[in-house]
Amino acid sequence: MVIALDAMGGDDGSAMVMAGAALALERYPKLSFIVFGDEAQVRPHLNRYPALEARCELRHTVSCISPEMKPSLALRQGRQSSMRLAINAVAAGEASSIVSAGNTGALMAMAKFVLKTMQGIDRPAIATVFPTQRGECVVLDLGANLECDAENLVQFALMGAIFCNAVLGVEQPSIGLLNIGVEEMKGHDEVRTAAAILRERPLPGVFQGYVEGNDIMEGAVDVIVADGFSGNIALKAAEGTAKFMAHMLKQALQSSLMGKIGYLFARGCLKKMRLRVDPRRYNGAMFLGLQGVCVKSHGGTDPEGFANAIGVAHDLVAHRFNDRIKQELARHYGSADEDRTVTIDSIALTEEAS
Amino acid sequence: MVIALDAMGGDDGSAMVMAGAALALERYPKLSFIVFGDEAQVRPHLNRYPALEARCELRHTVSCISPEMKPSLALRQGRQSSMRLAINAVAAGEASSIVSAGNTGALMAMAKFVLKTMQGIDRPAIATVFPTQRGECVVLDLGANLECDAENLVQFALMGAIFCNAVLGVEQPSIGLLNIGVEEMKGHDEVRTAAAILRERPLPGVFQGYVEGNDIMEGAVDVIVADGFSGNIALKAAEGTAKFMAHMLKQALQSSLMGKIGYLFARGCLKKMRLRVDPRRYNGAMFLGLQGVCVKSHGGTDPEGFANAIGVAHDLVAHRFNDRIKQELARHYGSADEDRTVTIDSIALTEEAS
Repeated sequence: MVIALDAMGGDDGSAMVMAGAALALERYPKLSFIVFGDEAQVRPHLNRYPALEARCELRHTVSCISPEMKPSLALRQGRQSSMRLAINAVAAGEASSIVSAGNTGALMAMAKFVLKTMQGIDRPAIATVFPTQRGECVVLDLGANLECDAENLVQFALMGAIFCNAVLGVEQPSIGLLNIGVEEMKGHDEVRTAAAILRERPLPGVFQGYVEGNDIMEGAVDVIVADGFSGNIALKAAEGTAKFMAHMLKQALQSSLMGKIGYLFARGCLKKMRLRVDPRRYNGAMFLGLQGVCVKSHGGTDPEGFANAIGVAHDLVAHRFNDRIKQELARHYGSADEDRTVTIDSIALTEEAS
Repeated sequence: MVIALDAMGGDDGSAMVMAGAALALERYPKLSFIVFGDEAQVRPHLNRYPALEARCELRHTVSCISPEMKPSLALRQGRQSSMRLAINAVAAGEASSIVSAGNTGALMAMAKFVLKTMQGIDRPAIATVFPTQRGECVVLDLGANLECDAENLVQFALMGAIFCNAVLGVEQPSIGLLNIGVEEMKGHDEVRTAAAILRERPLPGVFQGYVEGNDIMEGAVDVIVADGFSGNIALKAAEGTAKFMAHMLKQALQSSLMGKIGYLFARGCLKKMRLRVDPRRYNGAMFLGLQGVCVKSHGGTDPEGFANAIGVAHDLVAHRFNDRIKQELARHYGSADEDRTVTIDSIALTEEAS
């Protein structure tokens, strides 16, 4: 399995990306990489990992996308950038997938432009895995679409369920729509219409109705579907709260001698807890709904986190994630090769027939 | 200061409400209460607190609002309910404020109907206080308005800043608009228009621009303004994450002997931390923008939490919160007694003049 890497993205650039790729290779020894970046910058880091070097093709690129660059500008001026050329490698069939820690908006715009949206999917969505009290769950959309209609949300549910199955191995995942209450009359029109459709339509999972913000980390369902605005806010509110709690815990344990002694004893346990909620463990947000696997790593992550993002790409390719979405789309909307207008008619027919 | 209490709301009903009122009276000995509820249920609990009994008038009511009752039904059929009669006492000038742990939607609908929205405010908002790494902050709206236009958000900012000053004592609070990025082009039209207005208009605080979900608990600003849908989701995502972290901590400390020993030493510190993040401490959501002070307690709270909700009502009345909103509205929109159409014209005039 060949994965294309953008070596110029992320706060620590090629040093972090090369170290992460070396770590990923230890975990998945059959991987190989095509690395896109400035050879003068990347080569010294690559040389530090002989095993990686043996499984790596480095392609020199002359430009890169800055974190502040607007997506429209990146599309126009970034044709020779490491990010764009890495995406092109997927479109050309040279790589199975691309992983980048660069500018999210630019990556989404270029991936959409180059890889194209899957037939039957109106808009791609960003999904990630959250830790929960009961295990893990998938949340989407995390910011690709600020406003979503009911059909977009339904498509997110479908893609989220297949993602959950591929990445977390859950058979028939339970699916919830993020809302501000669980009663039927709550929420926007879009959410209520999406719920009505999800109750009727056959799904690669089980629709459980509405969930609220607190249900995410409580693990009420396996897949949480939201518009990109509230999904993004929920994700970041959760991240902020986890940091806040960790900060309060640290402060509490440092506030007295007894606390410090307690910490010495509990250190091992607390470390295990830290690993369990470690954001690096959940690094790797996937752009769902594109004709190609594109994984976005946090820009501020470290090699461990980047290796996990590569792991997400690996799992999605190994589980033939995109083929399965196509199959599900065909099952739900008729043939995935028909165009969207026909597709919507065929839902009505399927529903009447059932 | 007289506060009207709905004794029939909340999971534990009048037992919890009476115990909470007794606790609040210890903290604010000048308070007195008019209590609305079924005398047969309330009297035995009231009798347990002689000091409270001496400062309490119990008014027998024959019906109450159930937690599931729709707001429209509560309005039509709840005219003799404890909740409605308690609100009426504020409208009649018998009480300074009302506190209820009952059905939120019904309370908002009845409070809006009886107390009326303040002139110059289009929609009331629900606000509460969050703990942060740097102290505390105010967040609104938490679910009263699913969709908000730019002017609603601007009014929330104004009310939130005055609330923050009254309840937290912050002079010139910093204000942020909740968004999915801090760059100017991010977010919905409504959010971007609100930001443009807030940058221009004089405020009882300092507008800092956009904030993201993680900024809430990091304490980036004193007041966080959001539409009711994303505000509610942020609040509940934060609550769920705090519970998740507490659960993980407990599990970690119980997972080994060393963890258990560590806990014995650190117990005092951890208790202090628990108190600091205790949801009861932040109980008491305020309906801002009504011609009367109405505070909603969590239904599942205990006497400590309910006493805190009474404390919020006390602070808002003591700091003449509503008078100050009226003054600010007059300062920003011209006289608060003019009607809304005139008011909007007067903004334009003020802005042209400045």
